[in-house]
Amino acid sequence: MKPRLFTPGPTTVPEDTLLELAKPVTYHRAAEAKAILAEVSEDLKYVFQTAQPVFTLTCSGTGGMEAAVSNSLAAGEKAVLCTAGRWGERWRGILKAFGATIVPVEVPYGKAVTHDMLANALTANPDTKVVFTTLSETSTGVGHDLQAFGRVVAKTDALLAVDGISGIGAMECRMDAWGLDLVVTGSQKALMMPPGLAFISASEKAWKKIDATPVRSFYLDIRRYKKSLAESDTPFTPGNTLIKAQRVSLKRIRAEGIENLWARHTRIATACRAGVEAMGLKLFAEKPNSALTVIKVPDGVDGTATLKALEKKYGYKFADGQDAMKGQIWRLSHMGYTDAFDVLGALSALELTLLDSGFKLEVGAGVAAFQKAYAAGK
Amino acid sequence: MKPRLFTPGPTTVPEDTLLELAKPVTYHRAAEAKAILAEVSEDLKYVFQTAQPVFTLTCSGTGGMEAAVSNSLAAGEKAVLCTAGRWGERWRGILKAFGATIVPVEVPYGKAVTHDMLANALTANPDTKVVFTTLSETSTGVGHDLQAFGRVVAKTDALLAVDGISGIGAMECRMDAWGLDLVVTGSQKALMMPPGLAFISASEKAWKKIDATPVRSFYLDIRRYKKSLAESDTPFTPGNTLIKAQRVSLKRIRAEGIENLWARHTRIATACRAGVEAMGLKLFAEKPNSALTVIKVPDGVDGTATLKALEKKYGYKFADGQDAMKGQIWRLSHMGYTDAFDVLGALSALELTLLDSGFKLEVGAGVAAFQKAYAAGK
Repeated sequence: MKPRLFTPGPTTVPEDTLLELAKPVTYHRAAEAKAILAEVSEDLKYVFQTAQPVFTLTCSGTGGMEAAVSNSLAAGEKAVLCTAGRWGERWRGILKAFGATIVPVEVPYGKAVTHDMLANALTANPDTKVVFTTLSETSTGVGHDLQAFGRVVAKTDALLAVDGISGIGAMECRMDAWGLDLVVTGSQKALMMPPGLAFISASEKAWKKIDATPVRSFYLDIRRYKKSLAESDTPFTPGNTLIKAQRVSLKRIRAEGIENLWARHTRIATACRAGVEAMGLKLFAEKPNSALTVIKVPDGVDGTATLKALEKKYGYKFADGQDAMKGQIWRLSHMGYTDAFDVLGALSALELTLLDSGFKLEVGAGVAAFQKAYAAGK
Repeated sequence: MKPRLFTPGPTTVPEDTLLELAKPVTYHRAAEAKAILAEVSEDLKYVFQTAQPVFTLTCSGTGGMEAAVSNSLAAGEKAVLCTAGRWGERWRGILKAFGATIVPVEVPYGKAVTHDMLANALTANPDTKVVFTTLSETSTGVGHDLQAFGRVVAKTDALLAVDGISGIGAMECRMDAWGLDLVVTGSQKALMMPPGLAFISASEKAWKKIDATPVRSFYLDIRRYKKSLAESDTPFTPGNTLIKAQRVSLKRIRAEGIENLWARHTRIATACRAGVEAMGLKLFAEKPNSALTVIKVPDGVDGTATLKALEKKYGYKFADGQDAMKGQIWRLSHMGYTDAFDVLGALSALELTLLDSGFKLEVGAGVAAFQKAYAAGK
């Protein structure tokens, strides 16, 4: 059986990127390593849609999020936290560890925070230093309207910090044009790489605050990365084989074009949702994003057992809900190197698994609806 | 030309470990991933020579060092810092960022801190909470007598924190038997892997202090890793392809046996030093360790130009001195997957490069002395 990975991180990595990882290790301070880091950093600026430098940290996405918090907030300073699921809660965990004063703007799982809610919180809390939010809330499939958030926050002295870990590359996101001040992402989602690298960039407005904030970390102090990157270097030994492989995936992204990449994700996501609904299933996210499709487990179906059967019989690995959502939802990624034909196969396998379990559906309706919606897209 | 890596990190990685990195990416929360993490964690306990759990962090060695500091010291608490080079200074940078009160015990580059110096510092500073030191000071080639340090610190309430990044695996180091309280290492040295993972373990004495210390990080909070590892899991998305590859290299280490690994490094290091001296060159470290050989650049020779020629003509990549030591020393690693025949070749290439530059030496004396010392070893 052929194993196929549809979890919303890690995602499938292109073969040429994987082969790069098998090449002999080289010295991370050599001229060649510096040239590669410079190239990767330029390509990341393109992916982030920013003129600011983008720094490569050797850590998980959470490490990148911690860098956003520790560099921009002093202990006790006020943060507005937009929470629509588990990744908003991840921000909360980090903010608590760093002693922030948190103003929560929270919605139930499946819903999205609106820019009005954010505007009200900022009006009520004019001393807010940073707003923390999530581009793609992978735990529920919800996407946030960061363009609108950016307009709201730009009118204030606060910064807008974005967890773009599973969104960047999969959803339109324009750091500079939208006024996003701190943007973080990770290698293992739409950037078509294994986990191990996080990327962060800061606006000029953010740099003013960062330069005025006491140092709270050494390893994640982005001032050090800024100084080093000016010489195409990193302050600490980086995951240099990962950086070399990320270069290969970034070249693939550049060749496709970031706008085409966003459009591809939108087209696949739209088709996937049509397919899911034609199977008689319901979507979980009120405002779904293009990185993944989150499906409500229908009444009378054992969600976790279905995913196990799907993997065992057909090789397709979807993700279950996390924590309290376990067994309630199915999460199917269509990020990065995953294309329309891959997702079509995933819907076919899901349909077969449901049929096997006695769930009533019209055989073939899901894949036909996917095909129809995909053909109508562009 | 065949490129050969002799930098003291990254080091040459075995082919089967590299090929593991080229395998398709899998889900990091699957049962298989948990089984692999459990296996890696057991093998790391063996490498550390400890009964305590060893945690896998996705970061550079410096991130692991920061975890040792941030988990064990509250702001303002006193730390004795043994500094014999750049990596002791790395501890200093981290300690400063975390607001420690630093008592320096410092020796010039090339010298080693003695246990008497440490004992005096602890007597003068009975309120010391943690002593920070370096197993292998890679910037100078010096090794510290951690067994003696452990005896000194065990008599006090202080903890002994060890940067074992380029030492663990290359030099005898017994965490439990020697009373080492916090031990950190990285993947890219004697553990035969690319950079990207750090490993840390804490003694029972250390855990008492850690549990009484305020949280100062989220990503590097080892309490979270302890809780997760009890379920063979990680708190955050780990560099899971690196962990799978580390498993392959750890199996290789287990197959060789840790004591045999230490003995192999000692034997090669002894032979390498004999070879270097027979070439008319001098060693830089007063108390050299087995991870690398550090050679003084002879008078009248351009150290940096020689290394460039060595790489360009013969493919051998040694490391230059860092910062103020640039051009003053040559650093030649014999860690991990590097064996005696590799080092013999490196000495041959160095000799040829020196001959090319007009340096006077007895041709063949270096390799013969290496061979003789190696044959006499066991």
